[in-house]
Amino acid sequence: MDERFESRTRRLQERLATSDATGVVLVPSPNLYYLSGFWEEQMERPLLGFVGESGDPSIVAPALYGTQLADETWIGDVRTYGDGEDPYDLVEAVAADLDLADGHLLLDPTMWARFSVELQRRLSDATVDLAEDLMGDLRIRKDDAEIDAIRRASRVADAVVSDLREMGESVVGMTEAELARTIEDRLVEAGGDGLSFDVIVGSGPNGAKPHHHHSDRRIGAGDPVVLDFGTRVDRYPSDQTRTLVFGGRPPEGFDDAFAAVSDAQEAAVQAVEPGVEAGDIDAIAREVITERGYGEQFIHRTGHGVGLDVHEAPFIVAGSDRTLEPGMVFSVEPGVYVEGEFGIRIEDLVAVTEDGFERLNRTDRGYGVA
Amino acid sequence: MDERFESRTRRLQERLATSDATGVVLVPSPNLYYLSGFWEEQMERPLLGFVGESGDPSIVAPALYGTQLADETWIGDVRTYGDGEDPYDLVEAVAADLDLADGHLLLDPTMWARFSVELQRRLSDATVDLAEDLMGDLRIRKDDAEIDAIRRASRVADAVVSDLREMGESVVGMTEAELARTIEDRLVEAGGDGLSFDVIVGSGPNGAKPHHHHSDRRIGAGDPVVLDFGTRVDRYPSDQTRTLVFGGRPPEGFDDAFAAVSDAQEAAVQAVEPGVEAGDIDAIAREVITERGYGEQFIHRTGHGVGLDVHEAPFIVAGSDRTLEPGMVFSVEPGVYVEGEFGIRIEDLVAVTEDGFERLNRTDRGYGVA
Repeated sequence: MDERFESRTRRLQERLATSDATGVVLVPSPNLYYLSGFWEEQMERPLLGFVGESGDPSIVAPALYGTQLADETWIGDVRTYGDGEDPYDLVEAVAADLDLADGHLLLDPTMWARFSVELQRRLSDATVDLAEDLMGDLRIRKDDAEIDAIRRASRVADAVVSDLREMGESVVGMTEAELARTIEDRLVEAGGDGLSFDVIVGSGPNGAKPHHHHSDRRIGAGDPVVLDFGTRVDRYPSDQTRTLVFGGRPPEGFDDAFAAVSDAQEAAVQAVEPGVEAGDIDAIAREVITERGYGEQFIHRTGHGVGLDVHEAPFIVAGSDRTLEPGMVFSVEPGVYVEGEFGIRIEDLVAVTEDGFERLNRTDRGYGVA
Repeated sequence: MDERFESRTRRLQERLATSDATGVVLVPSPNLYYLSGFWEEQMERPLLGFVGESGDPSIVAPALYGTQLADETWIGDVRTYGDGEDPYDLVEAVAADLDLADGHLLLDPTMWARFSVELQRRLSDATVDLAEDLMGDLRIRKDDAEIDAIRRASRVADAVVSDLREMGESVVGMTEAELARTIEDRLVEAGGDGLSFDVIVGSGPNGAKPHHHHSDRRIGAGDPVVLDFGTRVDRYPSDQTRTLVFGGRPPEGFDDAFAAVSDAQEAAVQAVEPGVEAGDIDAIAREVITERGYGEQFIHRTGHGVGLDVHEAPFIVAGSDRTLEPGMVFSVEPGVYVEGEFGIRIEDLVAVTEDGFERLNRTDRGYGVA
């Protein structure tokens, strides 16, 4: 069994001991995986992990998951229930054994109301709040194995960016959805494990819509195409964006805006080192883009942390005084969006090192293709 | 705008008026889509829909979703917040306007604790419970458009089952993961919109594991392969299973067990009509399989309702006294699982009609291929 999971749990317990919280209650989620090694989606029936200030954690789970929990986690106290049994009887027993019944419990932020409402009813002497900050702080500094997984996922995605450049003008005439499907196939062929989020192929005016994924629009010669996609390796995701132009000259005004985004991204990445504040990185990118006259069209934060969740702390956003520390991994992704015409975004993942940064995406950042 | 969404909301309000609940609070989910037409995943920031006993509903949403909510829903009162604003100030205002502040609120069962905990803190005079039964009862009878969407999704999946039979012995030597990928591609080519759940390809002994999806195991000649997959059309899913044998004779004992499952499935489907109880359908399938000596190896319920959620009411499970009514749609999927050897499952979707049933999957149920 991988000992990382247990040592993370012990670190959590040290923090619990010095906080006003008594324990943490988790559902299948990145938080539960981080502490136990168990990776599943939340399901209809309760599967709840309990960590108190001391002693070993307990899990209450449907009987069907008994073997998987024994095989995949270091947690010895797994209490299972069958179809006819009341899982919350087990919850009450665990709460009594772990001294949580009248404590202050921090809930997994993604716990469904289906479970949180019943949990609060059955543990009516306990008070609840969210485990968000406590778990976020624990997860924000990645260890070497975590960074290596993100690095390998990034290499897989980089290889697919290179494939897209090689496809050159053969992309012209494909629909965004067809190109998205091609990207999905190549990510898997290159060694990725599924998608870390729905592929974004935003061609021409679609590139300017912040929540666009892909459509049946055919990619024209010279259309700027925002290509934002990622995959997973060993559970950890990649996330990068390139904006490419296939088979023609881009529209008027594009080159100037592209240079602004490209320079902003480079300046922000180069500024990454321990001790700098997250808000400073955002300010550096924003200043370059604003100086060039596109400030109003840079409509989102500069980046977000990446770990088991594709969006997690630290957020690279205006005003954040979160100090960068070695082990943090986040995206740097300024963009400019010209409504009705095109979008431009350039994104790399960056890991903070002892004395600077490591860029986890290595492919060319220009818009040209083969 | 599609008037179905508003009329469903009015039906909900009629039920609220005769219940002890004052209102419903929803997050992006099938429940919110059912009432509004807005289809998204739950996101980091709160997007909450409020329905009171009378008057029009309100939505609190991030500003970025303002246009989409105006375009895709019939709901006029959409209150948006920007990055620096507190969304729960809007929540308090909506609760006051809709007379919910000291009411009894039913929460969307999948609402994240991130939102439910803050909602309870800010509306501290309200009590909460779950909207599960109320929304489930509303959604359980499908209208013609809903059944037609499920029918069309089922046709897409049926076409892919036919493709798999045509592939014949060329499947031998493929890994389960490769075959799963082929199925995904063909579902999209045949007109499906993504997957309704992760494709299951369970070959040989893997077919006997209830939670198996697919692996790198190579499919051998004569291996029984459990193939369970679905897609969506107009938001509604399909779900069917066939067990096929490629390029060889199946193992000893397979034919007898297959006949038991096949006969059980047919008997259970033929029994579907208004007035029958869900538990009776389960009992009919179970009796056939038990008589043939496989009762211990039929380890799950006979079926589940299918709608915006792939698993919803009615559940076709032992002891259920839920009476079948026209418009209900559910799966009939008995199975036999021989540990370490093979699994067998045959599944069709069935819609209850005024005087019987319509089977929504039409392909051959045998295990033979081209």
